[in-house]
Amino acid sequence: MKLKADRATLLKALAHVQSVVERRNTIPILANVMLRVESGKLTLTATDMEIAIVEDVAASTTRNGACTAPASTLYEIVRKLPDNAEVEFDHPGGDAQLALRAGRYATKLVVLPVEDFPSMTAGTLPHRFSLPAVTLRGLIDRTRFAISTEETRYYLNGIYLHATESGGAKVLRAVATDGHRLARVEEPLPEGAAAMPGVIVPRKTVGELRKLLDETSDAVDVELSDTRIKFRIGTVTLTSKLIDGTFPEYERVIPRDNDKILRVGAKKFAEAVGRVAAISSERSRPVKLSLGPDQLALLATSPELGTATEELDSEDVSYSAAPLEIGFQARYLNDITDQIGDKIEFRFSDGAAPTVVCDVADPSALYVLMPMRV
Amino acid sequence: MKLKADRATLLKALAHVQSVVERRNTIPILANVMLRVESGKLTLTATDMEIAIVEDVAASTTRNGACTAPASTLYEIVRKLPDNAEVEFDHPGGDAQLALRAGRYATKLVVLPVEDFPSMTAGTLPHRFSLPAVTLRGLIDRTRFAISTEETRYYLNGIYLHATESGGAKVLRAVATDGHRLARVEEPLPEGAAAMPGVIVPRKTVGELRKLLDETSDAVDVELSDTRIKFRIGTVTLTSKLIDGTFPEYERVIPRDNDKILRVGAKKFAEAVGRVAAISSERSRPVKLSLGPDQLALLATSPELGTATEELDSEDVSYSAAPLEIGFQARYLNDITDQIGDKIEFRFSDGAAPTVVCDVADPSALYVLMPMRV
Repeated sequence: MKLKADRATLLKALAHVQSVVERRNTIPILANVMLRVESGKLTLTATDMEIAIVEDVAASTTRNGACTAPASTLYEIVRKLPDNAEVEFDHPGGDAQLALRAGRYATKLVVLPVEDFPSMTAGTLPHRFSLPAVTLRGLIDRTRFAISTEETRYYLNGIYLHATESGGAKVLRAVATDGHRLARVEEPLPEGAAAMPGVIVPRKTVGELRKLLDETSDAVDVELSDTRIKFRIGTVTLTSKLIDGTFPEYERVIPRDNDKILRVGAKKFAEAVGRVAAISSERSRPVKLSLGPDQLALLATSPELGTATEELDSEDVSYSAAPLEIGFQARYLNDITDQIGDKIEFRFSDGAAPTVVCDVADPSALYVLMPMRV
Repeated sequence: MKLKADRATLLKALAHVQSVVERRNTIPILANVMLRVESGKLTLTATDMEIAIVEDVAASTTRNGACTAPASTLYEIVRKLPDNAEVEFDHPGGDAQLALRAGRYATKLVVLPVEDFPSMTAGTLPHRFSLPAVTLRGLIDRTRFAISTEETRYYLNGIYLHATESGGAKVLRAVATDGHRLARVEEPLPEGAAAMPGVIVPRKTVGELRKLLDETSDAVDVELSDTRIKFRIGTVTLTSKLIDGTFPEYERVIPRDNDKILRVGAKKFAEAVGRVAAISSERSRPVKLSLGPDQLALLATSPELGTATEELDSEDVSYSAAPLEIGFQARYLNDITDQIGDKIEFRFSDGAAPTVVCDVADPSALYVLMPMRV
């Protein structure tokens, strides 16, 4: 294997692949990236056995071949090379060291055998569709905060992606929940997705995918079976196992008949929640909402520190149902308001029942929040 | 106590005082800041029993009095208030709660008795002098990295500040060492400092002082005895205990006769050290310098990862003594190069002896580095 590549191009690709590599590995080769030159093309591959990332890198190649070298070391070296450096790789084959040169800098890196590098074969991926990057970003951003971190509830440790109907239209839906809150977002069903199975995309895959989506505004190609999913983002292919579990019947927990409607300016509400919650150092303490006619007051208390209140300007509040008191964890409220534009709508039933939250201007997303006792 | 103050003014002062407060306190009142209105003036005070910070804050006061409230909570609240908010404090006295209002936001904070707030009396501080902020910053930045973190060698856990003579001139000297490297920086002795005792300023005090120095370009007033030091930076007064110990006879470890002189471009050297050291994940592995006539090559090896070398452009290197090989910890080299402008001078004796490092253009700073076996 022999090639030359620009430092900038290489650095970007190494940043992607080393992100997938786990910091601590019991299997040494999983700390490595595979470099392969074939038919004059360089590809980098890394995997943690759950996710595999493959990236094509523009390079001028002069000999085919492959080797695997430590991903984070390679990334650190290339990062520290001068901006405009041309980087030369030379690996004679076998267990010889990988030589890297750039100007007056030269390194020889210990390699591990290519044959030992785990290949994650995706198998057949019968369902294929394409989504604009911005649409996929929106599905992720508005749901990922609700992904559960409880490992025992492994079937909640990801985003549930599935095709369904909503108001007579076919949609692609993303749902996440941790039992305390639920986020449900939908977009028009892309062509080719109608027969797809419902799949649970793991948290880490969601995170890696989201980072890659920051770098593109193009369409992303998605292929999946009921055990694997593959995203093609420009020159990068991310393949991931899916969570082997059954996502709960989430529709059952979404209240249909909540009829006490509050509308409030999102930014002012979010800031007031932050201020009032600042009284408490415990993250899980509730903020209490006290509702009256076009009135909304927030209250938080801490036995050690004191109390804090803020009444929102009635110009920013619209509420005409019966007075109500209800408490929510401040962070849960702000996770949702972070995703909402101008105005939030709350749909309450009573102070102890699940509450529906949505963006007045955007019916594609719906959130459910369990109240806390106050 | 009753007053009004601008949110921005208050936030800046609270940022200073809450920085001194320790995150975890076994004595609850040490988590608090004291607010005192006296003769129409607001002052904030915080202490960790080693350092005390007192800041005058512009405020419009209507009633004298004092109370103590949780510093970090107060800081968080004020931080979350709108930019242009006017903040009103009202404390009727005794153990009544402290009321804070800003617009529609109101909080009541639990207070602790002012009588229990520890006062750090500085006693008489017979030595007084004044230093431009930029001079004090320079003394700190060029020495603090060498402060020891070994708690058993408590007398090395700070910067040793003392008056002495250097080349016939009277100077104020700052010295720090951790036994592996030493930094010695001097500035012309300011008026009033001639009779000052040598004092060891603790690491945390150095850190707090350094942060405050970022906000001013004025002169800083320094007062000290042999147990206390006080810095006046604008409206802030920082008083600190000094380390009660004897700083070692550091002059003895500074070699006088090192005659193998290397001069090298600081930036290129620092970058090459970083690149070559990237081969090793262990921070303490040495980088080896190989010297020949106007030649400098760097080498690092890692048993698991491989080797890396870089030869510096001979245009950037000036060396005419006998060939030499010597190893240093990469981080120690870069701590020094961070403080050096255009060109570094190394003065070697041999591969096992302490090496002197300095900035060719700035004789006021001198560093000593112990080599590592390579």
